Amino acid sequence: MPQTSDTNRRLVLAERPKGAPNENTLRLETADIPTPKDGEMLLRTEFLSLDPYMRGRMSAAKSYADPVEIGEVMVGGTIAEVITSNHPKFEKGEFVVSFSGWQDYAVSDGAMVNSLGKTPQNPSWALGVLGMPGFTAWAGLTQIGMPKAGETVVVGGATGPVGATVGQIAKILGCRVVGIAGGAEKCAYAVDELGFDACVDYKTDTLNDDLAAATPDGIDIYFENVGGKVFDAVMPLLNTGARIPLCGLISQYNATSLPDGPDRMGMLMGQLLTRRITMRGFIIFDDFGHLYPEFAAQMIKWVTEGKIKYREEIIEGLENAPEAFIGLLNGEAFGKRVIRVGNAD
Amino acid sequence: MPQTSDTNRRLVLAERPKGAPNENTLRLETADIPTPKDGEMLLRTEFLSLDPYMRGRMSAAKSYADPVEIGEVMVGGTIAEVITSNHPKFEKGEFVVSFSGWQDYAVSDGAMVNSLGKTPQNPSWALGVLGMPGFTAWAGLTQIGMPKAGETVVVGGATGPVGATVGQIAKILGCRVVGIAGGAEKCAYAVDELGFDACVDYKTDTLNDDLAAATPDGIDIYFENVGGKVFDAVMPLLNTGARIPLCGLISQYNATSLPDGPDRMGMLMGQLLTRRITMRGFIIFDDFGHLYPEFAAQMIKWVTEGKIKYREEIIEGLENAPEAFIGLLNGEAFGKRVIRVGNAD
Repeated sequence: MPQTSDTNRRLVLAERPKGAPNENTLRLETADIPTPKDGEMLLRTEFLSLDPYMRGRMSAAKSYADPVEIGEVMVGGTIAEVITSNHPKFEKGEFVVSFSGWQDYAVSDGAMVNSLGKTPQNPSWALGVLGMPGFTAWAGLTQIGMPKAGETVVVGGATGPVGATVGQIAKILGCRVVGIAGGAEKCAYAVDELGFDACVDYKTDTLNDDLAAATPDGIDIYFENVGGKVFDAVMPLLNTGARIPLCGLISQYNATSLPDGPDRMGMLMGQLLTRRITMRGFIIFDDFGHLYPEFAAQMIKWVTEGKIKYREEIIEGLENAPEAFIGLLNGEAFGKRVIRVGNAD
Repeated sequence: MPQTSDTNRRLVLAERPKGAPNENTLRLETADIPTPKDGEMLLRTEFLSLDPYMRGRMSAAKSYADPVEIGEVMVGGTIAEVITSNHPKFEKGEFVVSFSGWQDYAVSDGAMVNSLGKTPQNPSWALGVLGMPGFTAWAGLTQIGMPKAGETVVVGGATGPVGATVGQIAKILGCRVVGIAGGAEKCAYAVDELGFDACVDYKTDTLNDDLAAATPDGIDIYFENVGGKVFDAVMPLLNTGARIPLCGLISQYNATSLPDGPDRMGMLMGQLLTRRITMRGFIIFDDFGHLYPEFAAQMIKWVTEGKIKYREEIIEGLENAPEAFIGLLNGEAFGKRVIRVGNAD
């Protein structure tokens, strides 16, 4: 069932997942297309962003933000076209970055909506390298990581939209960059295409040794978006004075219980203490929203000059979003995963 | 055996403690008094500081700094008098802050030695509120905690030289201050004498509830020098954007193994992430040494004006230092524990 002009397809939260989301987590419904009032506009979704944080919003516990309620449309960043506008600042035919969620149509009052103009190049990039993931990479690295030339930066999810951007910025800033990714193909891409100095495959039994070998001078900045056994491999290699920007922990989002002991919480704190390490969790727009213009100007320049490369995986059709999201959490994405919701035309 | 003018008593590390130090950990020896060469001076110890970090130096693993070797004099901060000087900047009769260790006499080339003049008031205070512990409190609170008026600050070891100073500075800066200490007497002192808004006894079964009741607006800054069950009580109460300066973990220094599971390391990281918390370990002179003059000027002013109170426990005799140190690690000190090594005269 493609996008049409008279029906709003939407994916609502059917039940809270216990562990990994499955085919029963979201339910595809149809509804009437909503009508914008004065000061509002109707948006038609072209692209839906898939991002790991969405898993947290499926749970009842408050995570980054309030949970999505059962029966509500799943939240998500989108690229949309303005179909009708009663809003003074937006006109029909403009493309916008919005937060319309997993559906074809949404009404917006313009809050948190940014225009891309009527003929944007690569509009979906505003969901990746030029949007939230790219901003997360840039701000976490520069504002918390504070890299100096010659330091060693390690980042997981090395071919994902955050990790790939972290590593490429760190290279521009003169650092040694070691990625961690799942499988030989992704590792080769990180080195050959993205220019990382090395990339280690976490799906092997030699992760700890391989990472140690790739970081002969230790680790000064670990950009954390993975957690779990990747962090276990990183921890012994952290240098005195290391910085750990912490923006995600994808490896544990589907966990239903804490891992078996021993309890290493105090050990982690002891490591932070004796090695004088900073670990800081951040939520990009809450912590660094005021820096968005600086980020955008810099990143557009780098991307235009070819200094930062960007890889997308575009998956066709809103109905395929749930399966694509389940795969994203399993590490199956190779590049930024985006759903094309609109009909290619 | 008192201090004499012809023998150097010294406490050397006899064996590395497994768990808590005991009466066999340190050995009292006598030796000849060393002779200063050109550019050196002979120092006679008046006061020896006892500090929790010393436990780490007794272990073979590198902690804050290299371990003390077996047979070496135990390290420690001291107040000493210059007995003979071949050093151009120090003269006989001056009192100095030095790092002479657990012994009567030491030769120094003047490195890391600061003069207190010939007739200092309360020279031992330079081992406490005006020295390393006070500097730790001030720098950790102001540089990492970054308190704003109206915020809630929680600190463990509330009557110790670090915790008491943290809390009193936070009160000066307009914060709500809640201490955590062992026993009703210490808690009453923190409130009645130090001016804390509340103080919770960690030796009860109601710690978690008591701390929650004392922090109705949550915790914005937790100054961590304890760890263990105190941190367990703090963690659920931390506000979004909280800061955790981490300068010590006295509750786990004597541990010989990790606690039983489940493993909460990932949970801690998840809490730092979703609540956008900063946790930063620091070693005072390594991280903030350049701020010492600013600290000293401010703290002398506060102490002189009576805005910061200071409590000492002076224990007589170098030979009693090992037992006093064991007690310090067990939470028995009430105020800054200092050994009077010199003969009161």
